[in-house]
Amino acid sequence: MDRALELALRGPAYGPNPRVGCVLLAAPAATATAGDARFVLAEGWHEGAGTPHAEVAALAAARAAGHDVHGATAVVTLEPCAHTGRTGPCAEALVEAGVGRVVIAVADPNPAAAGGADRLRTAGIDVAVGLRGEQGTALLRTWLSAVDRARPFVTLKLATSLDGRVAAADGSSRWVTSDVARHHAHQFRSQVDAIAVGTGTVLVDDPSLTSRTASGELTRHQPLRVVVGVRDVPAGARLHGPGGELVHLRTHDVTEVLAALHAREVRHLLVEGGPTLAAAFLRAGAVDEVHAYVAPVLLGAGRSAVADFGAASISDAVRLVPREPVPLGPDVLIVATPAVTTPSLTTPSEEDR
Amino acid sequence: MDRALELALRGPAYGPNPRVGCVLLAAPAATATAGDARFVLAEGWHEGAGTPHAEVAALAAARAAGHDVHGATAVVTLEPCAHTGRTGPCAEALVEAGVGRVVIAVADPNPAAAGGADRLRTAGIDVAVGLRGEQGTALLRTWLSAVDRARPFVTLKLATSLDGRVAAADGSSRWVTSDVARHHAHQFRSQVDAIAVGTGTVLVDDPSLTSRTASGELTRHQPLRVVVGVRDVPAGARLHGPGGELVHLRTHDVTEVLAALHAREVRHLLVEGGPTLAAAFLRAGAVDEVHAYVAPVLLGAGRSAVADFGAASISDAVRLVPREPVPLGPDVLIVATPAVTTPSLTTPSEEDR
Repeated sequence: MDRALELALRGPAYGPNPRVGCVLLAAPAATATAGDARFVLAEGWHEGAGTPHAEVAALAAARAAGHDVHGATAVVTLEPCAHTGRTGPCAEALVEAGVGRVVIAVADPNPAAAGGADRLRTAGIDVAVGLRGEQGTALLRTWLSAVDRARPFVTLKLATSLDGRVAAADGSSRWVTSDVARHHAHQFRSQVDAIAVGTGTVLVDDPSLTSRTASGELTRHQPLRVVVGVRDVPAGARLHGPGGELVHLRTHDVTEVLAALHAREVRHLLVEGGPTLAAAFLRAGAVDEVHAYVAPVLLGAGRSAVADFGAASISDAVRLVPREPVPLGPDVLIVATPAVTTPSLTTPSEEDR
Repeated sequence: MDRALELALRGPAYGPNPRVGCVLLAAPAATATAGDARFVLAEGWHEGAGTPHAEVAALAAARAAGHDVHGATAVVTLEPCAHTGRTGPCAEALVEAGVGRVVIAVADPNPAAAGGADRLRTAGIDVAVGLRGEQGTALLRTWLSAVDRARPFVTLKLATSLDGRVAAADGSSRWVTSDVARHHAHQFRSQVDAIAVGTGTVLVDDPSLTSRTASGELTRHQPLRVVVGVRDVPAGARLHGPGGELVHLRTHDVTEVLAALHAREVRHLLVEGGPTLAAAFLRAGAVDEVHAYVAPVLLGAGRSAVADFGAASISDAVRLVPREPVPLGPDVLIVATPAVTTPSLTTPSEEDR
């Protein structure tokens, strides 16, 4: 399973589908580990929507290598799907291939795709669920959250001075944080499905919202660019330049924004600002994670990172549980999650895994 | 010298005098190290103003143990003083004791006390200066700065939410940071000579400005409590309760504040707030170090850590060079120093070492 989890990471972090890895072990396998290479028949992982799922990729690799998979053990990080979406159901493929045992890390919470384990058991296949369940869940964190709650997992990014400013008094903000921190933020952009900013930020900062390499080139995957608010995006805005598709959502309602993005199969949304949009998401209880880049800079005046979201007293503060701080050049990245889970805004609906 | 530096640390970090350690080695000492315990005759360190200096303490310890110090080597972290202050000159004591060699880490920049090395050489004693000079300078950092510039070394403390707030919209601020961070801040208070706040903070927060242990008891050393500003301290204020002496400086001029505290032999001043006082010190270029406790909390409204200090554009920002971030429970402490040294506000004057 450790190997299957490694394989899963070869798939893209973005996209509507989860990252899944699969290892096929020759029968009989005394234990369900991939530690002994002599028993490994084939490996597979999912490369993203429209490409074969991990199990199908592994079966194809075994066949291509001339291996007999009858009675083999399939070790897979997520419960094989039981439905036909962009590709056929994996549970069916495993049954047809005649595998004898399937070991799964995480059950599929997706009501449309679930039922794979039952389908396998009905066919007489031995099924075990939960091996390395914690690691599997961690790997699929944002996807599981999005599918379970039928709305994107939301990361709020802040890039501030030590005194919480995102720009100076005259609005200038290039650069508060260092190039090391900015490069880190660009790498993170390349892993999400969409980036949102408010119209105020579009008008003041004219951001391009692209994911770029350290040398300034566009990365292969460009997230959807989402503008929230009723004001127009100027014709000459950088947002019209090269990058991901531009979506303008003319609303201030966070629930509407999340529903619209969920309908577009956005699993992971990065909210980059400004203060008003950050406050709207916090007020809606829709922030699942905060990435705060803190620069050793003092400004004393200028725009604050987060506008008033209705916290009147210290007891109304949004309290977060941080991970270990990450030094990034002179800056520090603090990744933190709300102390209490935010409520589901809508009920789960059909998904294509 | 490593041992002498260790001994120096036994002295208090606060107080008008520097921390100094001294090791006496039996003659002949081939090398000036205290690594071989067989050669160590005696050790000494300075316990604070009014008590014997490190060299005199070491000589006394040698005599008490019945050791002959004629021709011995004195290894001392700071150049022995040549003047009579609260105690007699150390250079003279070393000459009278008949030591043969003196090894010094750091030369004394204090014009009144300096000249010790010359006095020793005149007496025919072999003198070497600079061994572990970097470590010696680091140990005496705040004291050297204060003596060299004839004004206290200034640490600005900030304790903020991730979005740079020190209090919520209604003024409530207990507690933004965790008890781990607060305890750390109290420990730091016990190492400084004075703590300053503005009258605004006195009126809004009613702080006691004491140094307390984790269990809430007052520590032995209590820093001077300094209130800056023209408004009165209310009769019932906590500042009138147990703790260090209360000094009210009815001015807004940072240079005046520093001169008044220098006259009281304050070497290390901790500026704790509020935003207006922090801004005044930043505007005056009088902040030598920032201690920023950042809590994983979002407030969205309320008092900012630092008020406008005249930075109109991002190019006016005070940029700091941080040390490694220190996790303190859920919070992070960022210790940073200004990228450019702040100018001397006054010229050096007489000092009692």
